[in-house]
This record gives sequence, structure tokens and C-alpha cells, in this order.
Amino acid sequence: MKKIHAFQTVDKIIFGNHSLENLNEHLFAFGEIKHVLIATLPNFEKNLDIVTKQLDELQVTYDVITDIQPEPTVYHLNELYSRIESTSYDLMIGMGGGSILDAVKILSVLKTNDEPLENLIGTELIKNKGVPMVLIPTTSGTGSEVTPNSIVTFPEQELKIGIVSRHFLADLVVLDPMLTVSVPPRITAATGMDAFTHSFESYISNKANPISNMYAMESMKLITQSIVQSYEQGDNIEARSKMLLGATYGGMALTSAGTAAVHALAYPLGGKFKVSHGEANSMLLPHVTRVNLDVIEDKMAYIAKEIGLVEQGSSLSVKETAELLIKQIESWTKQLNIPQNIAEFGVKYEDIQPLALAASKVTRLLNNNPKELSVEDVENIYRKLLD
Amino acid sequence: MKKIHAFQTVDKIIFGNHSLENLNEHLFAFGEIKHVLIATLPNFEKNLDIVTKQLDELQVTYDVITDIQPEPTVYHLNELYSRIESTSYDLMIGMGGGSILDAVKILSVLKTNDEPLENLIGTELIKNKGVPMVLIPTTSGTGSEVTPNSIVTFPEQELKIGIVSRHFLADLVVLDPMLTVSVPPRITAATGMDAFTHSFESYISNKANPISNMYAMESMKLITQSIVQSYEQGDNIEARSKMLLGATYGGMALTSAGTAAVHALAYPLGGKFKVSHGEANSMLLPHVTRVNLDVIEDKMAYIAKEIGLVEQGSSLSVKETAELLIKQIESWTKQLNIPQNIAEFGVKYEDIQPLALAASKVTRLLNNNPKELSVEDVENIYRKLLD
Ligand SMILES: NC(=O)c1ccc[n+]([C@@H]2O[C@H](COP(=O)([O-])OP(=O)(O)OC[C@H]3O[C@@H](n4cnc5c(N)ncnc54)[C@H](O)[C@@H]3O)[C@@H](O)[C@H]2O)c1
Ligand SMILES: NC(=O)c1ccc[n+]([C@@H]2O[C@H](COP(=O)([O-])OP(=O)(O)OC[C@H]3O[C@@H](n4cnc5c(N)ncnc54)[C@H](O)[C@@H]3O)[C@@H](O)[C@H]2O)c1
Ligand SMILES: [Fe+2]
Ligand SMILES: [Fe+2]
Repeated sequence: MKKIHAFQTVDKIIFGNHSLENLNEHLFAFGEIKHVLIATLPNFEKNLDIVTKQLDELQVTYDVITDIQPEPTVYHLNELYSRIESTSYDLMIGMGGGSILDAVKILSVLKTNDEPLENLIGTELIKNKGVPMVLIPTTSGTGSEVTPNSIVTFPEQELKIGIVSRHFLADLVVLDPMLTVSVPPRITAATGMDAFTHSFESYISNKANPISNMYAMESMKLITQSIVQSYEQGDNIEARSKMLLGATYGGMALTSAGTAAVHALAYPLGGKFKVSHGEANSMLLPHVTRVNLDVIEDKMAYIAKEIGLVEQGSSLSVKETAELLIKQIESWTKQLNIPQNIAEFGVKYEDIQPLALAASKVTRLLNNNPKELSVEDVENIYRKLLD
Repeated sequence: MKKIHAFQTVDKIIFGNHSLENLNEHLFAFGEIKHVLIATLPNFEKNLDIVTKQLDELQVTYDVITDIQPEPTVYHLNELYSRIESTSYDLMIGMGGGSILDAVKILSVLKTNDEPLENLIGTELIKNKGVPMVLIPTTSGTGSEVTPNSIVTFPEQELKIGIVSRHFLADLVVLDPMLTVSVPPRITAATGMDAFTHSFESYISNKANPISNMYAMESMKLITQSIVQSYEQGDNIEARSKMLLGATYGGMALTSAGTAAVHALAYPLGGKFKVSHGEANSMLLPHVTRVNLDVIEDKMAYIAKEIGLVEQGSSLSVKETAELLIKQIESWTKQLNIPQNIAEFGVKYEDIQPLALAASKVTRLLNNNPKELSVEDVENIYRKLLD
């Protein structure tokens, strides 16, 4: 069988503690810059200052947006664009979680493509490269800084849709763990489990390949070493640093291999019930994995070994070794106090079928799943989260 | 201490056996293409046909160059450019070893920068992005397909100089192991050891970092599993495939961490005595490593363990474990019949000092070496290859 894989990524990554302070050194690659758009979190003045001071030194002017909403809707994105439509930018800097990075990706291409956002929804429908982008993640989660994806919420259809475009790949990424120390525990937990899910799903994806596997495995190792520490001691820089690299590697893995059923089932929970992306994935991960288990035992046992769950000289069977990984995931869910029940978010029994129908439409991701899931299979999984 | 690292790479890689046949599917990203320059090896008709057939389908026209000389000189490159100066190309496809890929990089930027090649020699002196490039390696060696480097020979100065530019990073890379089966054993050996040297030097470089280390280690594992097989059975596709991925990973590692003293000392041997790049590195590697040994013992022992040289439950000391790696390198040199003596290439005792002086000027690479080497140290290393 002919198996051909693709690996795509951003032009340049700089990383290390306080690497944000070195932004200037890398801006030469963008040619002459006059005016910049910066999108960042509110209450992020200290880090915003690090950026603006450097732009001041270069005598570059800038506008700042600090009111991008989490998991932005198509309406919100259009409104944001209308605010900047008449201003010309040579560069856009997004410094925030996946929500802000995804929004900047959209703003960047709306500027250079004479099309409404509604026409760009899909895979590779965006014609022109956007305004150059620097993406600076402040959560260790989505990996959006290195993916060609941007996830948009459609509140009426109660859906989240992933737009995929090579023009969403950043020109420069800055990975500075110092920016992530302020992430509160609940978000550290959810985003961290999102990152683990990216790597895990990439590793078991039908499109898994040597490059994606290398990133996925390294990512799972790093996250295993640091997720609980990051949650319990937010200012543990070494743990934050491993989580950030782990999350970015997860983004690289998923760009090549894709995520699978966990993400497909998470989207409707986010679109309809506002379950945050990370918590939705985290709740679904053990249940979806139990369903996939019999066809991915070998891979799971290998992961368990590589991330250090297996004792030296262990005499466990492959299946038992694979189980260790599920138990580790379940144990994280508990240690990190991830919600375990979607009733908390208002889901009722009668919602299960529409949720399952919506998830079944996310074929872009379900096609990557090692096992075909019927609508009934999907219903059963959601039901586990209501019991 | 503030440690900031950078990782840069190409936009997109496709890989797999016969992936060359899928080139067309990825050309959409280049917009409208009318006329293409293809530079490839002579006697490579079969693979050239695979490319041109696809271009024909797209009704794209092309010119073909098949007389690029190995390890091209500045004169040869200028002559090649003069031939294409008056023709307009939307895309350049380089399909060959490092020599051809490096030449295409130069042709690409000469087209878009109104400067003679002589003005571009150095690091990041090239202003404009060149004509878009597809790079398709046919050796598993230099990693040039993913590096921002192009090595030019200056015969009068008896020097090889590395030009570094972000504009040398390809837009698309195709890794098709089928193209490498025809590489003759001697070149398989030399280029393979070049690749190993990239990963090894990146791993022990002063600029080594988590991303470069991941690529370097994976590369050393793949090469260890396949270098002898590729040499002994040129048509062993699995071995060829591992070597090709291993070489590309080596290029990714060195782009971030840099090579070190082995490469610095290899350049003058190439510039003055026409020792091929791979053979020069391969001859120098064990000797330079013995000099570095006491400061890199830990790293070397770790490599030895990870690439599988250490028996389970081994009671060897760190130093002894590190020695296993040197012995493995020496054993490859023998199994692959790499020349062991530079006298074969016409080097005499009186050449040692000028060689050492030339090598000592390659500070870009010597700065990465874990140990500072005096001119005398360098002389002593060259002398080992004359005894
Ligand atoms: N593009 C992709 O490849 C990709 C992949 C997965 C998910 N996503 C999308 O990304 C979004 C989720 O991103 P996320 O998980 O990073 O969360 P987020 O960006 O929505 O942020 C979550 C919350 O954390 C806060 N926050 C972020 N960084 C902080 C910091 N350093 N200190 C204090 N507070 C901070 C934000 O203000 C917000 O309230 C969703 O829309 C999801 O669908 C995108
Ligand atoms: N750009 C970089 O990052 C980088 C790094 C290291 C070295 N280099 C440079 O690359 C050059 C060396 O490249 P190389 O080692 O790939 O060798 P090469 O390109 O010089 O090729 C060596 C020989 O192998 C032949 N050959 C190549 N592919 C073949 C195939 N598939 N079948 C049959 N014959 C084949 C060539 O015709 C040539 O005779 C040197 O100039 C070196 O300085 C560049
Ligand atoms: Fe996700
Ligand atoms: Fe080399």
C-alpha cells in the first residue's frame, strides 16, 4: 500500500524563559514594519509592556485589542474585524490562549482576502496569505500557535467548526513559559489535558506517521512529567516549560496526523453547552479510549512504557499494560478535578441523540479514528458522562 | 542564565515511498504556475519523467538543467545563473544531492535579489525571498532540503563557505526513498556518515536544545538501524527510508543547534583537496570526538544507550559507555570502507598548518563546539589522519 504523509509547520519558533524579551531580534524577517495590531488578554499589562517597549524601540506604532471572547463566535469575529477593517497593519501579534490565537488567524486573512468569513469555512478555501503573524501562546493547550487550524463557534447551529488553511501557519512563534504561570488551576488542568489529547489522538490516528509519532510521544513524555506539578504549583517554571513545549509538540503532531473521535465528540459539547474545549476533551478521553481499546492495545502499551508507567521487569500482558495508560488518564482527571459529568453543564438525556448526530457529522476527525463509530456508539459514550 | 533557542524549518514536507508521484497535489499552494526550472542529476530520466508528466498534466512548461557539478564553485554557480537569467520562472524544482539542492537555493535568490552572488556570502545578507522552491533529495546526507544553508566552494581561496539565509528554506520538500536506491555504495557511505555527523554534532553542540535534541536523537536511532544495510543492499527500501528520514531530521537538528568542529575541519579538506563532504566528516568524526570526549561523556553515554549499544543490566561506567559510541563510529567507518588517511587525497605534512589555520577561521561552527580548540589542537587532529 502506498502511504504518503505530510508534515507542515510554522516558519520559526523561539523558545526559552523570557524569550518574549527577545522578540525584536526576530522582527527583521518581516521587512519594514510601521503599524502593528496586538491582540492579547485583559489584565496582561506586564507582558504587553514587554512587547510594546520593544516596538517603541523600533519606532513602530500599534493598536491593542484586549476584549476577544473565549471560544469566539462567527459574530464576534466579524465584529472584531469591522473594528480594524479600515486600518492597515504590517504585522499582527496574538498573545493569548487558543481563543485569541485563533481569532488573530482569522483577522489576518480577512485583511487580505476580499471575502466574508462565511465563505472561508472549510479546508483550504483561503486564497491569499494573510498579514504576517507572530503567535505567542499563554496557555499550554491547543497548540494553535503551530497548527493551520482556527476553530469558530456557530451559536445558532450550536456547532464549532474547524477552518483549515496553510495561511493560518504563523511566521514566528514565541514560546515563553513565563507567560503561562498566571493560568489559574482549572484552566491549567483543562488546557493541559487538551494538549495530552492532541498527542494521544495523533499517535493512534489512522494518519499517524513517523514525524507525528515522534512529536506525539515526546509531548506525552513531557506532559506526564509536568501536568500535575503545573496544576498544583502554578509558578513551577520547569513544569510550565515542559507543559508549553509538550503542548506545542501536540500541535505539530495533530497538524500531520489529525485528532480523532475525542475531538469530534467534544465540538458539540462546546457548541451547544459551552463546555470548554479542554474539559470536554478531558471528560471524553477515557470513555472514547475504552471503546477504541481493542484495536489500539499495542500502541497504548507502547505509550505506557515510554512515558514511564511500567515497572522494570513487568510481566503484564499487552492489554494490562494498555490499561495502565487508561488508569493514568483517569487518575489525572481526578487529581486535576476535571468535571466528570455533563449534567453539570445542563446536558439532559434527551440531548444525547442530537449531540451524537452533530458529532457524527465531524467526519474530518472521525475518519482519523482507529475504529468506525456508529451514531449509537457515540450516544453510548455521551451517556457514560451522564450516569 | 537566560537560554533562548530558535527552531526554523520548511513549510511542508511530504514523505513516503513513491511520494514523488503525488507532487501535483501539493502544487496548488504556489498559485498559478506557468514555467518551471528543474535541476536534477544526469541519468535520472525515470524520476525526471515522474515530475514532468505531472507538470504536463497541469499544462506547465519547464526547462531542465542536468549538468550541475558536485560541490559547486562560485564560478560554476554564476555560469549556471547566466544561463537562466533572462527566463522567468514561477517555481524551481531541485532533485538531487546536496550539491544540486544548494545550487537551486542560490539560483532562486539570485533571481529576486539584484545582487551578485559575491555580495550574498555570509549570514542573513539576502534581502528578498527567492523564486518558490521544491527540494527533493536523492541522497540521505546533507539535510540541505530542510536547512537554511548553501555551501559554496571558492577554489582560489581553497575554501568552502556556508551561506545562511531564511530564504533558503524550501516551500515544499518531497522525501521519496525510491529516489535514493540508485546511490552507489561509496556515496551511500559518505553521505550517510555526513547525516550521522549532523545529528551527533547538533546533540553535543553548545546550542543544543530540546527540539534539536529530539530530532538529533531520533535521527541517530534511524541511522544506526539502517546505514550498514543501505550500504550493503542498496535496494533495501526500508533501510533507505530510515536513512532518508534520518538525514532530514539531521538537517532539522543542525538548523537549530548547528554543527561543530568536525564540519569546521572538513571544509578546508573539501576546499583544497576535493575530499567529498561526507568522507571528510566521516574521517574526522572519531578523532574530533576523542578530543571532545571528556566534556561530552554524559551525552555520549546517553546516545549509546538510546541507540541500543548498551546491553541490559550493563555495569559499564559513563566513560566506558561513551567509548562504545566511538567504537561504533569507528566500526562503521571500517564496514563502510571510508578512507582513513588524507594522504590518499594528496595531503602532505606541510599542508597541515595551512589547513588548521583555515579551519580555525570557521568560527561560525567552532563556536558550537563543546571544547575550545587551539590551532595546535586542530593540527593534531589532521595529523592523526596522516599517520
Ligand atoms: N487552532 C487550533 O489548532 C485549536 C486546537 C484546539 C482548540 N482550539 C480552540 O482554542 C480555544 C481554546 O483555547 P484555550 O484552551 O487556550 O483557552 P482560551 O484561549 O479560551 O482561554 C481560556 C481562559 O484562560 C484565560 N487565560 C489564557 N491565558 C491566561 C494566562 N496566561 N493567565 C491567566 N489567564 C489566562 C483566558 O482569558 C480565558 O478566560 C477554543 O476555541 C478551541 O476550540 C484551537
Ligand atoms: N545545505 C546544507 O545544509 C549542506 C549541509 C552539508 C553539506 N552540504 C553540501 O552538499 C554537497 C554534498 O551533497 P551530497 O553529499 O548529497 O552529494 P552530491 O550532491 O555532491 O552528490 C554526490 C554524487 O552522488 C551522485 N548522486 C546523487 N544522488 C544520486 C542518486 N540518487 N543516484 C545516483 N547517484 C547520485 C551525484 O551525481 C554526485 O556525483 C556539498 O557541496 C556539501 O558542502 C550542504
Ligand atoms: Fe484540542
Ligand atoms: Fe554536513
